[in-house]
Amino acid sequence: MLNVMPKPLKSQAVESIRNAIIQGVLKNDEMITEKLVKEKFGISRTPFREAIQLLEAQGWVYTVPYTGTYVKPITMTDIDEVFEMRSIIESSIVRFLQERKISIDELKLVMKNMEDRMEDFSDYEFMQEDQAFHYKLYELTNNKRLISVYNQVSDMMLRIGVNVLYKKERRLEVIKEHNDIVKGLENGTGDKEIITHLEKTKKTFISVYENMK
Amino acid sequence: MLNVMPKPLKSQAVESIRNAIIQGVLKNDEMITEKLVKEKFGISRTPFREAIQLLEAQGWVYTVPYTGTYVKPITMTDIDEVFEMRSIIESSIVRFLQERKISIDELKLVMKNMEDRMEDFSDYEFMQEDQAFHYKLYELTNNKRLISVYNQVSDMMLRIGVNVLYKKERRLEVIKEHNDIVKGLENGTGDKEIITHLEKTKKTFISVYENMK
Repeated sequence: MLNVMPKPLKSQAVESIRNAIIQGVLKNDEMITEKLVKEKFGISRTPFREAIQLLEAQGWVYTVPYTGTYVKPITMTDIDEVFEMRSIIESSIVRFLQERKISIDELKLVMKNMEDRMEDFSDYEFMQEDQAFHYKLYELTNNKRLISVYNQVSDMMLRIGVNVLYKKERRLEVIKEHNDIVKGLENGTGDKEIITHLEKTKKTFISVYENMK
Repeated sequence: MLNVMPKPLKSQAVESIRNAIIQGVLKNDEMITEKLVKEKFGISRTPFREAIQLLEAQGWVYTVPYTGTYVKPITMTDIDEVFEMRSIIESSIVRFLQERKISIDELKLVMKNMEDRMEDFSDYEFMQEDQAFHYKLYELTNNKRLISVYNQVSDMMLRIGVNVLYKKERRLEVIKEHNDIVKGLENGTGDKEIITHLEKTKKTFISVYENMK
């Protein structure tokens, strides 16, 4: 059966504004006005206001009373917290997969695709493929609640990483580190390998972030 | 400065309905009508509808088209997923606190209060104190994003546990298991202890759950 229900206007508005922030069309601390959003995305007053409320609750924008709404910049604390949280949760997920001897064939497929198409990927596509690898770890737990935790961090990862992160040099490293995790999952050291990988990724993020200022 | 802003009607409505579900005033699969909610909580049509939308997204209620909105029952899958998720995340948090040698004085204070007032607590209060212990573990990481993960599971824990869980027999066990975790945090075995504690708690939950049917 085809899904022919149109998305509610509010969801469309949230998605448009969030994508514009992730892709850097709306810049840090840029003011988001009804006029701008109407011109750029054809979104009218009511869904705009509803969307802004939600985006503020989710930490994408901030409002200064009587002044306006702005794109909330990512801080060093955000980067620290997201990587620390991922390190805590993902190392434990890997340990869980190791202990239960859960099949990681699907993870290997993600890696095969990443390696085969490494040269063709745009930066954005490579980053998405990197995310697909980590997402698969959560998915292999088969625990919907854990998977929803991943969704909470993935948008911010996209937003920090989108522009400059996946330079060709880093691609080979990422592939090697991912393969170390896959091997580690088979011999019981994957939890250590993923902590190493996340530490290296965080370092790249920070150096990119420092250069953006 | 006193906070004199009244809560928005929608938030009040969400809170009233959620508390009624947690405390069993609204029962599993019970229909929630505008009339009922107006009579019970004095909530009018618009905030009611907005609240229901949000509660449905959060998994508290379900809607049957052209029929009505009902209290979503907790399933065995919910219990499995929540405990598995907590086991994965909390064991890793304990490992993190151990490795960084973070002070657990505040955790000991929670335990002292739990022990001192054990006899005075109502079931509901004892359960809240139990939650305060686990919440403190997340809080000691000082990572806002991890703390928000806790908030996502705590409501469901309250809802399952509220009526029958903290019988006096289990109280002594909970206190012993918590003290084992505290000791374990000091000698590096807390991650094992918390897994044991969560497994035992899950067993109690399931036996209660089976008896509720």
